[in-house]
Order: sequence, then structure tokens, then C-alpha cells
Amino acid sequence: MQPSPPVFSHRALDLKHGRIEMAHGAGGRLSAQLVQEIFLPAFEPGEGAAHGRGAQGDDAAALPFPQAGEKLVLATDAHVVSPLFFPGGDIGALAVHGTINDVAMLGARPLYLTASFILEEGLPLSVLARIAASMGKAAREANVPIVAGDTKIVERGKGDGVFISTTGAGAQPPGIAPSGACARPGDAILLSGEIGLHGLAVLSQREGFQFQSELVSDSAALHTLVAAMLAAAPGIHVLRDPTRGGLGNTLNEIAQQSGVGMILDESAIPIPGAVAAACEILGLDPLYIANEGKLIALCAEEDAAPLLNVMRAHPLGRDSARIGTVLADPRGFIRMQTRLGGERMVDWLFGEQLPRIC
Amino acid sequence: MQPSPPVFSHRALDLKHGRIEMAHGAGGRLSAQLVQEIFLPAFEPGEGAAHGRGAQGDDAAALPFPQAGEKLVLATDAHVVSPLFFPGGDIGALAVHGTINDVAMLGARPLYLTASFILEEGLPLSVLARIAASMGKAAREANVPIVAGDTKIVERGKGDGVFISTTGAGAQPPGIAPSGACARPGDAILLSGEIGLHGLAVLSQREGFQFQSELVSDSAALHTLVAAMLAAAPGIHVLRDPTRGGLGNTLNEIAQQSGVGMILDESAIPIPGAVAAACEILGLDPLYIANEGKLIALCAEEDAAPLLNVMRAHPLGRDSARIGTVLADPRGFIRMQTRLGGERMVDWLFGEQLPRIC
Repeated sequence: MQPSPPVFSHRALDLKHGRIEMAHGAGGRLSAQLVQEIFLPAFEPGEGAAHGRGAQGDDAAALPFPQAGEKLVLATDAHVVSPLFFPGGDIGALAVHGTINDVAMLGARPLYLTASFILEEGLPLSVLARIAASMGKAAREANVPIVAGDTKIVERGKGDGVFISTTGAGAQPPGIAPSGACARPGDAILLSGEIGLHGLAVLSQREGFQFQSELVSDSAALHTLVAAMLAAAPGIHVLRDPTRGGLGNTLNEIAQQSGVGMILDESAIPIPGAVAAACEILGLDPLYIANEGKLIALCAEEDAAPLLNVMRAHPLGRDSARIGTVLADPRGFIRMQTRLGGERMVDWLFGEQLPRIC
Repeated sequence: MQPSPPVFSHRALDLKHGRIEMAHGAGGRLSAQLVQEIFLPAFEPGEGAAHGRGAQGDDAAALPFPQAGEKLVLATDAHVVSPLFFPGGDIGALAVHGTINDVAMLGARPLYLTASFILEEGLPLSVLARIAASMGKAAREANVPIVAGDTKIVERGKGDGVFISTTGAGAQPPGIAPSGACARPGDAILLSGEIGLHGLAVLSQREGFQFQSELVSDSAALHTLVAAMLAAAPGIHVLRDPTRGGLGNTLNEIAQQSGVGMILDESAIPIPGAVAAACEILGLDPLYIANEGKLIALCAEEDAAPLLNVMRAHPLGRDSARIGTVLADPRGFIRMQTRLGGERMVDWLFGEQLPRIC
């Protein structure tokens, strides 16, 4: 139904010079303005997207759930990346991609997103509008609409511009159930492309490093790549995106969940020259740098070759490679054959390598 | 399956004296410790709860969705209440109740919750553990499990202790579709109890007011009340919880969504003596104070009496009352007959009455 016209005339938000005030969070007319003049236009779903009711003003959205027998997949992420804009992306697109990917890693079709914002008093409305536009664009490109949202405001010095928490809902077909707990000795370990770009792009932007121009975040939604992979090999054991903690921690998580070891081949892991150079200068290990557009797949040996073919045929998997093999090892050790012919342990990252990269 | 034992021994978190460090957010072993030693034990679902897979270490949860033909309802909320603990609740229980209520207001059975945390460096782990325990307790009492989560850390001075974003998923049965857009002239306006308690409880705790002992938040999960109401009157037109912006703004939102007016009877609106007194002293209007355990129902005249009976028979609706009637008025004006026999407009709250009350 058509919304009734506003009852009292009021000025539109000044998207050029205006700033977030505490009153934008009070639930009154200014809160409604923020939704109507920034979020709703930015999040307008594309043609053919599934349609929710959230945009009409209720506090929740009622949505079709596609098919009997499918499981509901839920994933949630808080995003606190600093700076808000970086080569290859921004906090808005990142929030959309990150959550779509978490849903896709369970083999599910992402259907809907929700977004909750925590804004700092004084934030320029132009910055918020730019982030919202980027989120909306990323959601439309992925064909996963943002169906519900919420905004809260905190005082200056109690936040940091914009934090965004996104939740994704998806549908997992019967018989599809990849999980970090399903790795088996003998599995092939596949990686969908070059590592290290996202974390170093954010870091370089933050610190103003010289080499920042070559480092562009790989932030991307991987659900169409996953769909192609599952069509070729529905029995993929594990899918995981190596975000925070990078490839090194992600493989350790899988090893611990499944109670297996792994052997990696360093020379097979695609590392861009700019990443290797930046890591050398900064004393960082590319294995622990966050990625936002890459995935790891563990599968039975016979699925490895067909999967690699499918992955390399997809624009987001062109540089896919087999990087190792799962071993029987209840200690969960991950060993790596180095380029120089030696062997080293790939341990958990204990502390912190890069703060606030997602 | 059983998780494998940790590969390297490490000290348990010091829940008494420890504090959040940036490294707890880096996705390494310290991040895993936070999940395993604080969140998972706190969020252990109760007996008989629906069961997800998120707890086993994947980045998402795959969950049964109950019944063909039901719609998926999604609602999300950011919570930034200050202080974190207040009479009658805390940010953790509030986050659970608030999101369950948003799902319930679409007539849906809440099924699952996700929780994402943004923690400030330096936060005492004891505070986080207390909040997580309260969330877990609230979720178990409501029988709505927390199935997926995420945690990010921001530097000291870039956050404010704990922010929590919760998302709720529920199932809306066929034929049930209350919405703020469904109010019709002649509808009865019902309110489930006394207003003003939550906002003033938070404010009093924050400011250290004398009268704080009498003001206890009404924070509560309303889904069982809603279920009883829908069993008695499946055709309820509108359900809404008057949180931020209070009764006044919530009724204005409904009036605008539906293109109707309303007439209220001030003497019928239950306002506790302590709320009236505190509002008098502070110059606040109880109509705009946030509630976290109350709902408004708009229904056809013939449903009003049976609904009030059901509401008053429920522990969370004992003081339910009919407070007004919907009028045909495309301008969306809300008028109130005052106790003194006059009439006044109940307008939108334009700016801010109380910051950070949820």
C-alpha cells in the first residue's frame, strides 16, 4: 500500500553538510528521516529480488522461505574496519560480502540480509550516504536484498564513525552439508586464488604506505562460485573463507574441528608480488593476512580435478590451486614444505597481527 | 562429533581480573578462547530447544525451518544502552528480549537468535561474562537459542564497553500478518500494561537519581503473550512494542503507515506513580519514554473484549487496558482526551528525549 504523505512539512536532510546528531537515534521523526532519506533509497532491491515487508515500516520483515526440506542458515558479523574506505572497497560492501560468504560456506543460497548500524555523533551524513549506497550496490549485485535494519547513535568519542553488523539468512538444500568438522585424511586442499590482498590494502590505506596503489582488497561475494562448485561436486567436505587470521588460522580451525593434520606446499600458494614485498618490509606473514574474496575447499581426492576446473572457469577463482593434503594426525598439526625444501609448522596466530581489518 | 583436544596447552582466561585486549579480536587462539570459555558455556541451549550447528565452530548455523507455507521473519537491533546494568536488566537480557519482541510483533514464533559483539579494549572479562550469562539465561527462559555469533574488538576510546547487535529469525504461520499498515477506522487500541518504566530505570541508574529504587525496567520477552492473543483473535490488525520514542511515537508511526487518525483517553493509560513523579521532576513526558516489555494491539471492535481477557490472564499483560480508538483521518492526527477534560495533540517526538536507553 502507499504510505500516507508526511503530516507535517519538515526540511530534508542536508546530505552535503549535515552530521549525525544524538537525536537521529531517538526513534522520533529524525530517526525516520534517516531511514527514509538515506537507507531506503540506497537499499532499494533490484528487479527480480525476493521481496520483504521490512521497507514498509514494521520492525521486522516477513519473507518467503523457498522450499520444504531446506535448512535455514544464519550467519552474523560485526564490522569495525578502519579506515571506512580503502582500495577495493569500504565497510558497507565488506559487510555485505562477508556475511553472504559465511552463509555460502555452509553450501546455502544466501537469500536475505539484515543490517544494524552504530553511528558516532558528528559523522558526516555524506559519509553515511556513501556507505549505504555501496552496501545497496553490493547487495543488488549479489541479488541478496537487505530486508530489515536498525540504527543507534552513540556520543562523540564512544564509537568510531560507523560500525555495521550484518546477518545473513540462506537456504541449504537437502544433502548439502559442508562443515569444518568434515575434513578426512587424504582430502585435497584447494584455494580459490591469491592471498593477503584485503588485509594489506586496509593497512596500507590506514598507515599511508607508499606501496598502497598495488594493494587492492579482494572483497567479493563468493556465493555464485560456491554454487558452481557444488553443482560439480555436491559432496565437498569443507568450505571456509580465510578472513580474520588468514589462511593459517583458518586451516588450524578446520584441523582442530575435524581432528586431522595437514601438509601444505608453500610454492603452490598464490601470493602476489606486492603482498610478498609489503609483508617483507612490514615483517608480516602473508599466511595470517585476512582475505575477503577467497575460499578454501577440502574434498575427496577424486573431486579435486573437476572442482579446480570449475573454480578456474569462474571469474573469482581464476587463480585456484591445490595447496596441500589432509593427513591423519589427531594432534592437528599443520606442516608446510617450504620453497627452500625444508619444512615448518603453520601454527595458530596467538595474538594480534592486524587490528580492525574487517 | 567431539572436538579434538587443544593442540597446545594454554592458560584459561582470567575471568576475575582479565581484560579485553585487541588480540581477542584477531581471529587467532585468543579469539577462539573468548568463544570457548565465555560465549559457548553461557549460551548453552536449554533442554528441548531447537538445535543449530553454529556452536561446533563453523561461521554460520544450519537450522531446521519448521513447516512448509510459513514465512521467515527477520528482525535486527543494535543495542548501545548505557549503563550496561540497570534495575531490572542489562544490555544482554535487553538484546534478547528486544529482538524476540520484534519478531513476535509480526505474529511469528521466534526460533533463533544471532548475536554480534563490539567490545572496547580494556573491558573487564568479568563484565563480559556477566552479560553473556544474562543473555544465555534470557534466551533459555524464552526457549529461543543463540545459534551464531561474532566478536570484534575496538581500541580504548573507540567504543563504550559493549555493543550488541542481535538478529531474530521466526516463523509466521499462514493467515497471520499483523502490520503497522493494517489499522482501520473503528479499531480498538489496546495496551498491555504500565508505560515508562524501562527508560526511567536506565536514566535513573545513569544519573544516580534518588528515586531509582522504585523504577525497575519492564524488559521481557512478549512472544508467549502474543501467542495467546493470536490464539484468541488471529485477525489482530497491528501489534507493535512501544520501545524507543515510547507510546507516542509508536502510535504516530502506525497512524502514518496506515493513513488513519486516533483518539486516546489519557485516564485509561496506565502510568505508575513513580513514573509520573519522576517525569514531573525531570520535565519528561511518559508518552515518549521507552518500554521493553509492553505491546500495543489494534483490532476490530468485536475482538477487543476477548483479547483484553486473554491479555489480563497472562502474567505480562495483567494491567492491559483499552486506551483509544482508530479514526478515519488521512492527516494521521493523534488526539488525546486529557484527564482534565480537554484535548491535546500527541505529536511525533521531533528530537531526542533520552539517549542510549536501548
